[in-house]
Amino acid sequence: MMIIDGLVVSNLDRELLLQMQKGGLTAANCTTCVWDDFPSTMKNVADLKKLIRDNSDIAMQIYSVADIDAAKASSKVGIIIGWQNSTGFGDYLPHVNTFAELGLRIVQLTYNTANTAGCGCYESTDRGLTDFGGDLVDALHENRIVVDLSHVGSVTARDVIDYSSRPVAYSHCCPRALKDHPRNKTDAEIRYIIDKGGFCGVASVPHFLARGIESDVHDFAAAVAHVVNIAGDERIGIGTDIAQGWGPDWFEMIAVDKGYGRRLTSFADVPVLKGLERLDCYPNMLDALAKAGLNSRVIENVVGRNWYEFLKSTWAQ
Amino acid sequence: MMIIDGLVVSNLDRELLLQMQKGGLTAANCTTCVWDDFPSTMKNVADLKKLIRDNSDIAMQIYSVADIDAAKASSKVGIIIGWQNSTGFGDYLPHVNTFAELGLRIVQLTYNTANTAGCGCYESTDRGLTDFGGDLVDALHENRIVVDLSHVGSVTARDVIDYSSRPVAYSHCCPRALKDHPRNKTDAEIRYIIDKGGFCGVASVPHFLARGIESDVHDFAAAVAHVVNIAGDERIGIGTDIAQGWGPDWFEMIAVDKGYGRRLTSFADVPVLKGLERLDCYPNMLDALAKAGLNSRVIENVVGRNWYEFLKSTWAQ
Repeated sequence: MMIIDGLVVSNLDRELLLQMQKGGLTAANCTTCVWDDFPSTMKNVADLKKLIRDNSDIAMQIYSVADIDAAKASSKVGIIIGWQNSTGFGDYLPHVNTFAELGLRIVQLTYNTANTAGCGCYESTDRGLTDFGGDLVDALHENRIVVDLSHVGSVTARDVIDYSSRPVAYSHCCPRALKDHPRNKTDAEIRYIIDKGGFCGVASVPHFLARGIESDVHDFAAAVAHVVNIAGDERIGIGTDIAQGWGPDWFEMIAVDKGYGRRLTSFADVPVLKGLERLDCYPNMLDALAKAGLNSRVIENVVGRNWYEFLKSTWAQ
Repeated sequence: MMIIDGLVVSNLDRELLLQMQKGGLTAANCTTCVWDDFPSTMKNVADLKKLIRDNSDIAMQIYSVADIDAAKASSKVGIIIGWQNSTGFGDYLPHVNTFAELGLRIVQLTYNTANTAGCGCYESTDRGLTDFGGDLVDALHENRIVVDLSHVGSVTARDVIDYSSRPVAYSHCCPRALKDHPRNKTDAEIRYIIDKGGFCGVASVPHFLARGIESDVHDFAAAVAHVVNIAGDERIGIGTDIAQGWGPDWFEMIAVDKGYGRRLTSFADVPVLKGLERLDCYPNMLDALAKAGLNSRVIENVVGRNWYEFLKSTWAQ
């Protein structure tokens, strides 16, 4: 089975790569920009590339779906370089091309708050996509980089979907119908992006699931089943958001604006989903999806095949 | 005839690319870092790549000697991305890999003064290659980037040649035997780098040639002939250093430390070589080399074939 995870935000090292391999993961969108500026992002990208080079026996960088096929065939873990914020470009559009050449393949437009492109999901007022944000979306599409709207505010997300010449994605979010949380998306929002040819990956962060921090892998499976029910089984995937290998400082850093500013949320209560604590737990997820009533064809599509097809069309020249 | 210029530091735009094409240039090492730090260098690289993309009818980026062949076959101008200073890495060695992936193919270790790697040719005391400089040289060789020592001080240059696991180059310098100038190299220095498998490209900056600012293309041809006489005709090329399209502010910027500091030299008297003023003047150079007594085989080697062979072996994995 091919497993493609639409978001992994873990502090990767060889041990975690081995866990990913053991867990049967084929490829994952791995974050190299959160609140980072341009030099910091470039360092993160360089570091991740070095990790991949230094562990080329078990890992490889994904530039294309052909690389995903190669990762699958060789049982290596495919690393897709992605960002959760567009601040990494330093507001310099020619850098979109630069990073695309380095293999950047998915970029979230904003992370939680407002940046020069638009507003995040914790912004008090979502003022929508800016003019520069429109230029950035054009540059991302031109470079066949997936535009990710997971942490983007509702108004900005709608603006981007309407503005875009190509399909866009929520790589990792949960249905608001099961849990009222600013990071979650309404059924209408999920259907809207998919109706426009886009994609929705379901996250496994307990705070975003039905029973909050008490949630386990079955709540995650229920969220996947809900999204399949409301939006079909072709444009749905997983984006677990597994944040393994970080300490409390990191969870605090992502919970406040720009890593140091006003509080947006809190993860002080350790956001680990029971049953999906680690990067080798994907088999548990497969079991839970089956127990949630999804048949084997749907499971195969949802855990990897659908992302594969979406990436194939989105990355195509 | 294949013409490869080991250094062009011009302010490139479509007009200059057209001149290069008209002049019969196959490929040139084009500077994207002088005093620049990491973000500034990345912008320069992004801008040059954009220029190449926007003018893909007449220009292409050179990543390999196969690309040089392709440029020659299609009569496009091949742009080799190069630096005259290693400050562009921001002292972060993993960025050597990053820039290598983007096509950086030649890097001068220091520009005129001291940096974290070693000393430049205008430094009052050349303290030699630093420990970090050694690590950087290793990283450059590992990534098959040509190490350029043209503006490097004598002691540091000798250290690098002795330290290096692979041949290195003076991409653009003139013989001190014909003109005593801090930027010029002694016959012994030129022979030393070539004896170690390295390379010497001859510059056409009038200040470095026999008659100073009165020099013309025949003084340049005489400098080439001198280097051929003392070091053979196989590891010798051209590195004109043509600096077209810049105003007085730019010439002042390169003449003072870090673009703003203490004075190192002066180009206030306009450093343009008569007969080689523009990027379409290469045919004049060919005539001058013939008049200087070089036969057609030697000319063909010196103006391009030798650089081609050196790059082929240096860039090889």
